[in-house]
Amino acid sequence: MDTVHVVEKLAEIGAYGMTFHDDDLFAFGSTEEQRRHEIERLKGALAATGLKIPMITTNLFSHPVFKDGGFTSNDRAVRRFAVRKVLRNLDLAAELGATTFVMWGGREGAEYDQAKDIRAALERYREAVNFLGQYVLDKGYNIRFAIEPKPNEPRGDILLPTVGHALAFIESLEHPELVGLNPEVGHEQMAGLNFAAAIAQALYHGKLYHIDLNGQRGIKYDQDLVFAHGDIYNAFALVDLLEFGGPGGVPAYTGPRHFDYKPSRTEDESGVWESAKANMANYLILKERAASFRADPEVQEALQAAKVDELSVPTFGPGESYDDIIADRSAWEEFDPSLYYGGKGFGFVRLQQLVTEHLTGAR
Amino acid sequence: MDTVHVVEKLAEIGAYGMTFHDDDLFAFGSTEEQRRHEIERLKGALAATGLKIPMITTNLFSHPVFKDGGFTSNDRAVRRFAVRKVLRNLDLAAELGATTFVMWGGREGAEYDQAKDIRAALERYREAVNFLGQYVLDKGYNIRFAIEPKPNEPRGDILLPTVGHALAFIESLEHPELVGLNPEVGHEQMAGLNFAAAIAQALYHGKLYHIDLNGQRGIKYDQDLVFAHGDIYNAFALVDLLEFGGPGGVPAYTGPRHFDYKPSRTEDESGVWESAKANMANYLILKERAASFRADPEVQEALQAAKVDELSVPTFGPGESYDDIIADRSAWEEFDPSLYYGGKGFGFVRLQQLVTEHLTGAR
Amino acid sequence: MDTVHVVEKLAEIGAYGMTFHDDDLFAFGSTEEQRRHEIERLKGALAATGLKIPMITTNLFSHPVFKDGGFTSNDRAVRRFAVRKVLRNLDLAAELGATTFVMWGGREGAEYDQAKDIRAALERYREAVNFLGQYVLDKGYNIRFAIEPKPNEPRGDILLPTVGHALAFIESLEHPELVGLNPEVGHEQMAGLNFAAAIAQALYHGKLYHIDLNGQRGIKYDQDLVFAHGDIYNAFALVDLLEFGGPGGVPAYTGPRHFDYKPSRTEDESGVWESAKANMANYLILKERAASFRADPEVQEALQAAKVDELSVPTFGPGESYDDIIADRSAWEEFDPSLYYGGKGFGFVRLQQLVTEHLTGAR
Amino acid sequence: MDTVHVVEKLAEIGAYGMTFHDDDLFAFGSTEEQRRHEIERLKGALAATGLKIPMITTNLFSHPVFKDGGFTSNDRAVRRFAVRKVLRNLDLAAELGATTFVMWGGREGAEYDQAKDIRAALERYREAVNFLGQYVLDKGYNIRFAIEPKPNEPRGDILLPTVGHALAFIESLEHPELVGLNPEVGHEQMAGLNFAAAIAQALYHGKLYHIDLNGQRGIKYDQDLVFAHGDIYNAFALVDLLEFGGPGGVPAYTGPRHFDYKPSRTEDESGVWESAKANMANYLILKERAASFRADPEVQEALQAAKVDELSVPTFGPGESYDDIIADRSAWEEFDPSLYYGGKGFGFVRLQQLVTEHLTGAR
Repeated sequence: MDTVHVVEKLAEIGAYGMTFHDDDLFAFGSTEEQRRHEIERLKGALAATGLKIPMITTNLFSHPVFKDGGFTSNDRAVRRFAVRKVLRNLDLAAELGATTFVMWGGREGAEYDQAKDIRAALERYREAVNFLGQYVLDKGYNIRFAIEPKPNEPRGDILLPTVGHALAFIESLEHPELVGLNPEVGHEQMAGLNFAAAIAQALYHGKLYHIDLNGQRGIKYDQDLVFAHGDIYNAFALVDLLEFGGPGGVPAYTGPRHFDYKPSRTEDESGVWESAKANMANYLILKERAASFRADPEVQEALQAAKVDELSVPTFGPGESYDDIIADRSAWEEFDPSLYYGGKGFGFVRLQQLVTEHLTGAR
Repeated sequence: MDTVHVVEKLAEIGAYGMTFHDDDLFAFGSTEEQRRHEIERLKGALAATGLKIPMITTNLFSHPVFKDGGFTSNDRAVRRFAVRKVLRNLDLAAELGATTFVMWGGREGAEYDQAKDIRAALERYREAVNFLGQYVLDKGYNIRFAIEPKPNEPRGDILLPTVGHALAFIESLEHPELVGLNPEVGHEQMAGLNFAAAIAQALYHGKLYHIDLNGQRGIKYDQDLVFAHGDIYNAFALVDLLEFGGPGGVPAYTGPRHFDYKPSRTEDESGVWESAKANMANYLILKERAASFRADPEVQEALQAAKVDELSVPTFGPGESYDDIIADRSAWEEFDPSLYYGGKGFGFVRLQQLVTEHLTGAR
Repeated sequence: MDTVHVVEKLAEIGAYGMTFHDDDLFAFGSTEEQRRHEIERLKGALAATGLKIPMITTNLFSHPVFKDGGFTSNDRAVRRFAVRKVLRNLDLAAELGATTFVMWGGREGAEYDQAKDIRAALERYREAVNFLGQYVLDKGYNIRFAIEPKPNEPRGDILLPTVGHALAFIESLEHPELVGLNPEVGHEQMAGLNFAAAIAQALYHGKLYHIDLNGQRGIKYDQDLVFAHGDIYNAFALVDLLEFGGPGGVPAYTGPRHFDYKPSRTEDESGVWESAKANMANYLILKERAASFRADPEVQEALQAAKVDELSVPTFGPGESYDDIIADRSAWEEFDPSLYYGGKGFGFVRLQQLVTEHLTGAR
Repeated sequence: MDTVHVVEKLAEIGAYGMTFHDDDLFAFGSTEEQRRHEIERLKGALAATGLKIPMITTNLFSHPVFKDGGFTSNDRAVRRFAVRKVLRNLDLAAELGATTFVMWGGREGAEYDQAKDIRAALERYREAVNFLGQYVLDKGYNIRFAIEPKPNEPRGDILLPTVGHALAFIESLEHPELVGLNPEVGHEQMAGLNFAAAIAQALYHGKLYHIDLNGQRGIKYDQDLVFAHGDIYNAFALVDLLEFGGPGGVPAYTGPRHFDYKPSRTEDESGVWESAKANMANYLILKERAASFRADPEVQEALQAAKVDELSVPTFGPGESYDDIIADRSAWEEFDPSLYYGGKGFGFVRLQQLVTEHLTGAR
C-alpha cells in the first residue's frame, strides 16, 4: 500500500505512530531524487495527521544481494554495501525523529553448518554494530538500536536466534548501552519458548527497547497473526507484565506497543483495517482483564498461598554469610523435606484457574 | 547401578572419568555416616582404577521438596535448604578433585505464568550463584560452575531455557569469570535450535566450560540417545568445531567430552555398556570424517568458492572510518546488486554435498 | 491414591463416572484373590455413590515386560502375554458395565527405524484387535474399542501417531464397526496438529467413541494439564463442535466428556481436587461462551460474510455432470479471478476477533 | 526457468522424467493459444530428449482466487472454477501420458477454527475427488490420483495434514482404488512425524502411488532441501524400505523416485544443477549403504537378537482360538515377566550403532 494512504488510515483508527523499512518507502535502487520525493510526501502526511515515526529499520533481507545476509554475508562487498544502506537510513531516522532503530537480521544465518563460520559471523555482526554505534554517538543522534531475534525462516538457522542469544551478544559490544532488543511474540514462540518469560528476562537486563506484538499458533512458519489471536494466556501474562509489572503496579515498560502482524491473505482492504483495530482492541481487553485479576481478593489470597511474592524476599538475610547459614539448623538439620511429599502444595493450578476465569470474564 | 560397579565398568571400556550427582552416590536423606561410607567406597574404586571425577553436580530436582525448584522455589525455606545441599556438595567436589560443578536447574521454572515472578526468580538465581561463587573463592577451591540450560521438562518452561539465555544471565553475575556453560545436545535441539551454532556462540563468549554429548530426534521429550544417534549432521559439525575449530585447526575446546545419554529402556546390562561404547565410537568416527573433510582439496576449493574464510576478513579496513566508507564509491555507487540476481551464487549446496559424501564415507 | 477414596471424592465433586486401568485397581502381578478383593471394594464404592465406570483400559506400558510394546513387541511371548492381560480385563469391563475399552499403545513403537518392521507391527496390531473383537462379539459383550493415538513419548515414535493414522488403520480391520477412537487433546497437539479439526474428521468418519480432554502448551513432552489451561481457542472450538455441532445445533457427540489430566506435581491433595473441578468448570464456561457466540447477530452476519455455511452447499448442482459444468460459462470463461486480488475478502480476521471477544466475555 | 531449458538440463544430468503444474508451463490466465503453444514446445523437447512426464499436478494455490482453497473454498464459485481448472489439466495429463495426477491442497485449510466447517470441507473435498474420478473412469484415462498431505504453510492448518489423515479420507471415497498418496519427506517431518514409518503404513494400505523426496531439518517452515540433507538416518531407513523392503528383499515400491526440492536461494544456476545431481547421488549412496547393512553377518545376528523378524510371526498359532490361548499356561500362568526387568534386552542400541557404522562407511 502507498505510505501516505497508510499514514492516513492509521491516524483514522487512532494509532500513535507508524514504522517502516526503507524499501517500503522508496523501492530498492531508487534514485536520490525518488527517495527524497517519497520522504517529503511522508513528512507531509505526518505533519497533516500528527502521526509519529518512533522506529525505523533497514531492509537487509529482500533483495537477492542479501541472500547470505547483510552484516554477516560471506561476501565482504555485500557487508560493506549493507553498512552503507544502514548509514543513510540512520540519517533518515534522525531526520524523521525516530529514536529506535530496529535490526532484524533475517538473512544472517545458514542452512548448512559448514557454510558459515558462526564465530566469525558474530565477530562481523559485532564489528558492524560497533561501527554504527560510533556513528550515532559521533553524530549526536538520539537513536538506540534494537535487535530483533528470530530462530529461523527465511534461513534454516538464524544468528542470535532468541532473546537470550541476542542479550548475550549485546553484552560483548563496545557500547552495550546503545543496543537493546525488539522481541517479537511469534519469533520466540516459533522456538516453543515462553514470550512473557523472555520479556521478563529482557527487562531484568534493562534491554527491552521496543516490542513487536502479534500472534503465533505454535512451532511452525512465522504467522504474524493479530495480537492475542495466538497464545492468549501468554498474551495475558505479557500485558499484565508490561502494564502492571513495575514497582507498585506501574508499567514495567514505557516504550511503544508496536503491532507487527500481517493481515491474513484471505482479507481485502476492509479486513486489513479490521485486523489493525483488532490488535489494539485485544491489548485493551487484556489490560482490563489483568487489572481485574490483580484487584480480586481471591487472587491476592491465592498468590499469597502460592508464595509468589515470597520469591522477592532474598534467600539470605542481610549480611548473612555462608558460616551463618551453615550454623542455621533450621536450614538443614531441622528442616523436614518429607513434609513436601504429598503436602505443602503451592496451589498453582487454582491460581491458573483464576487466570482462566478472569481471562474469560467468568469473574 | 552401584557406583563402584560403574567405576569399574567405565574404566574397563576406556573412559577417562565419571560424573555423578550427590543423590546417585548416597540416597537423599542419608546420615553423615552413610554418606561418608559411600564417598570412601568411591575413592577406593577411583584409586584402584585411575578413573577421574572431573565434574560433579547436585540433585535439586528429584525430591518433592524441590517441586517448585531449588534456588528459585517460591518457598524461601526450600531455597535455603537447596543452598545448604549445594554447599556440602562443593566440599565434596573439592575433596574429589572435580574442577567443574554443573548446575542443571531442571525444576527452576513454572507451568503457569502467574505462578512465577520471572524477574524475582532470576534475582534469586543470581543471589545463589553469587553466594556460591564467593564460597568457592574464599575456600580457594579450584572449581568453576557450569550452568546447563534446558527449555522444558519436567517444568512447562524452565528458567534460562537456552544457551543464549544462560550466557546473558552469567554476564549479570558478580563473578562472571567463575561461571560458564554445560550445554547438552538434546536440550538445545528440544527448542529446534542448532546445537553446533550454540556451542560456537558459547566459545565466542569464552563460556564453554563443559559439554554434554548425546542424541535427540527433534522437538519432543528429552531423549538422551547415544551421541550421533540423533542429528548426525549437526554432530559432525560439532565434532569438527570442537576438534579442529581452534586457530590453525587445533581443538577449539580442551575440556572433557562428556556423554550424558540414557540407555534406552529396551536394553539389558550388556546393551547399556554397548551404548556407552557407541558414544565414544561415534565421536571418533566423526572426528575422522571431519579430518578427511578438511583434508580434501575439493572441499578447500568449495569453501573458497563459498567465501567461508572471507567472513574472517574484517568488513572495514584497518582504521577505516565511516567517512572513509562513505567516500568509497565501490561500496555503494559502483556496486551492482543486480549481479546477485540469479548470479554470484555461493555454492552452499555443493559444499553440503561434500559434507554428506565425507560423512557417509563416500569419498 | 486408593481407588475407593477416589470414587468417593469424584462423587463428591459431581463427576458422572470414573475410568481406570487394571494396574491402578490391583497391582501388576496380583494374585487372583487380591484382584477379586479390589474389584469387590470398587463395586461397593460404586454402589454406595452411584458413580459409573463407562470406560476401562489395560496397562500394557508400565511393566518392563512391555518395554518393546504389548501387541507389537518383537517378542512373541510378550505379545501373547499382553493379549491374555487384555482378555481378562475385557471380562472385568463387562462385569463393571463399561461399554468403551480404550487401547493406548504407548509402548508400541520404536526409537530406531531398523529395530521395528512397521508393516509387520501393523499386521500384529491388526491381528490382536481382530482377535479381541471376535472375543467381544462371541461373548456378547456390549463393548466397543477406542484407540488412543499419540505421536511419541515414551517411545521415540509410536505406531498410529495421530487421529488420522488410527482412522486409516481401523478401516483395515475385520470389524471396523467395533473400533473407534479416543483422541486426547495433548496428543494431537504434541505433533502441532489442530485437535478440534482432528475431532471433526473423526466425527466425519463416525469414529469418535470417547474423548480425553486436557491441556497442552505446544510441541513438547506430554503435559496433561487441566482442560483449557493449554490452547484455549482450540478448546473453545472443540466445545462448540461437541455441544452444538450436530444438525440444527444439537451436540455432535453424545459420549462421555472424560478429563484425562494429571495434577501438576506442585499440588497437594486439595490442589488435586481443585484441578479436577477446574476441568469441569472450564468445559462449562466454554460451553456458555460458544452459546453466546452462536446467538450473537453480528456473529451470524460475519459467518454469512465469510460464507462459512456456503461450504455446506454442494459444489455441483443435483445431477450435474462434467459435461454440464464444462458447458457452464460462468464457471470458467466468464469467471473473473482478478476480482479476488485485493478484493472479495472473507473477513476471517473479523470473525476470529468475534471469537476473541466472546471467549473473553468482552461481549 | 523456461520449461524447454529444464527438460534439456534434466535429460543431461540423467533424469528419467519431469513433473510440473499447469501454471509452470503456461501462466495462469493464458489464452488457449498460448497454452497450446507451450504444450507443443514441451512435447517437442520431450521428443528430442526422451524425457517422460510421469506425473502432473494443478496449481490451486498461487493465485489469489484460491486464497481460501480450491475444492474447499467457502466460495462455491471458486470451487467450481477449481474443478474446471483440474478437468482441463486432466486432459493434458492424458495427452502427455502422465499416469499420476498429484493433488496438493496447500490452501485447503484455515487459520481460524470458526472460519471453516471441517466436516463440510471434507465433504466438498470428497465430492470433488469423486467427480474427477468419475471423469477419469469415463474418459478411459490411465490416471491415478495421489494426494499430498501437509500439516501447515501456507495455511495455519491444512486439511488432511498427514499421511494418516489422507489415508483415512481415501477410504471414504466412491472409488478408493483410484486414489493414493504422494507423501513428501518434509511435510511429515514438519509435524515431527517419522517419514519412513509413514511410508511403511502407506505401503501397508497399498496406497503409495508416488513419492516426493527432499530434506527437512525438523519442525519449522517447509525447507525443501536436497534429499538426505535433512534427517539422513530416516532417509537411510526410507531407501532401505523402498529398495529392499519387498518380499525377499526386492523393492517395496516400483513407482518413480521424485525429488521435490528447492535449490537454496543462495545458489546460482550452476548451483541449481549441482543440487539436482546431489539428490540422485544421495539416493544411490544410501541404497549402497542399505545393501551393505543387509549383507553384514553381524547385522543379521543383531537383527536376530533384536527379534526383528519374529514380529512377522503371527501372535496366534494357526486356528488358535481364545479358548486355546487361555488354556496355554505358558502364555500367562507360567510366563515370568520379571525376567524382563534388567534382563531380556533387545539390543536395539547395538543395532542402531550398526546402522551408524554402515551409514558412515565405517564398516
